Amino acid sequence: MIGSPLLRELIEALRCMPGVGPRSAQRIAFHLLERDRPGALHLADRLHAAMEGIGRCADCRTFSEDERCELCAGTARDRSLLCVVETPADIAAVENSTAYNGLYFVLMGHLSPLDGIGPEELGLDRLEERFGAGEVQEIILATNPTVEGEATAQYVSERAKAHRLRVTRIAHGVPLGGELEYVDGGTLSHAFTGRLEV
Amino acid sequence: MIGSPLLRELIEALRCMPGVGPRSAQRIAFHLLERDRPGALHLADRLHAAMEGIGRCADCRTFSEDERCELCAGTARDRSLLCVVETPADIAAVENSTAYNGLYFVLMGHLSPLDGIGPEELGLDRLEERFGAGEVQEIILATNPTVEGEATAQYVSERAKAHRLRVTRIAHGVPLGGELEYVDGGTLSHAFTGRLEV
Repeated sequence: MIGSPLLRELIEALRCMPGVGPRSAQRIAFHLLERDRPGALHLADRLHAAMEGIGRCADCRTFSEDERCELCAGTARDRSLLCVVETPADIAAVENSTAYNGLYFVLMGHLSPLDGIGPEELGLDRLEERFGAGEVQEIILATNPTVEGEATAQYVSERAKAHRLRVTRIAHGVPLGGELEYVDGGTLSHAFTGRLEV
Repeated sequence: MIGSPLLRELIEALRCMPGVGPRSAQRIAFHLLERDRPGALHLADRLHAAMEGIGRCADCRTFSEDERCELCAGTARDRSLLCVVETPADIAAVENSTAYNGLYFVLMGHLSPLDGIGPEELGLDRLEERFGAGEVQEIILATNPTVEGEATAQYVSERAKAHRLRVTRIAHGVPLGGELEYVDGGTLSHAFTGRLEV
């Protein structure tokens, strides 16, 4: 119902972002027009540059504007460790909160045959080449603890074992600060099965 | 942390939007890169067009890419009614849910001497010209029921009365579906003072 076609189109276009419905789109559009036109122009410019310029790292498949991402191209990391994650956001999470110093491989998803996502779509052929290249010694599986994530971890682990690599899975259990009483059954049962000697 | 400079810049630029912190900015950036690059490019294009193309309507000060907005330029509305609101979003709200068929005047804020916002910044000189032009018969004050909104309404009403125009204020009281028990004291007291004969 808002008069200006340019404004209507902007509100509609803003909805490509996750979690932005008609009302937030309108709020964002009004905010930018009233208070931050330079910011909005800068955003338009950066969106354009990122969408046109960012591809995938040839080694680990994460987002990168160069042939190889900073981590894969650099020499600072332990190249014998390879951590397999589902998305680039998982790399950010691991980097922010752990002292992990090895390399990554990003699947960009998980095995999901019903959606037509098989080993090829996840770049697992590329991953297997790296298993065979002799540089990597240990594979750390950090896919999500969902049914699909577990199935994907299982698949990758079998391929890695065929190359006689050490394969580990990050620990799942009761989160720090969590109360036993409120932890879901699956997690609690996992915590008991995976208990460690003290 | 996240390798790619283009990605870092995009995440930073996304934060010009209200309610978007570092985590949502990252989530939006990854979502657009993974799933909706055409949508993001379209958004960049629309942002650019809107920020460059949208100005203010010469009559009512709402956002418009033309000299006069659709409502002010058209002939379909009752030009004897003028509703004074604080923002263009208020126009959208009134248009969406009432049968109001007159024109609007957008203050783009409210009187706030401490922030240096006086009558001039709100275009009240322009508004007063319209009071004197003889077309408008009734001024409907629809500023927000806040201290500043009330003060602004008071100021506008005095100027309008000096031109012998009819001045009305939209009703404030208990919202439909609200329960008396949970309505705040100010609203309830307002509802009693403004009670109507049945």
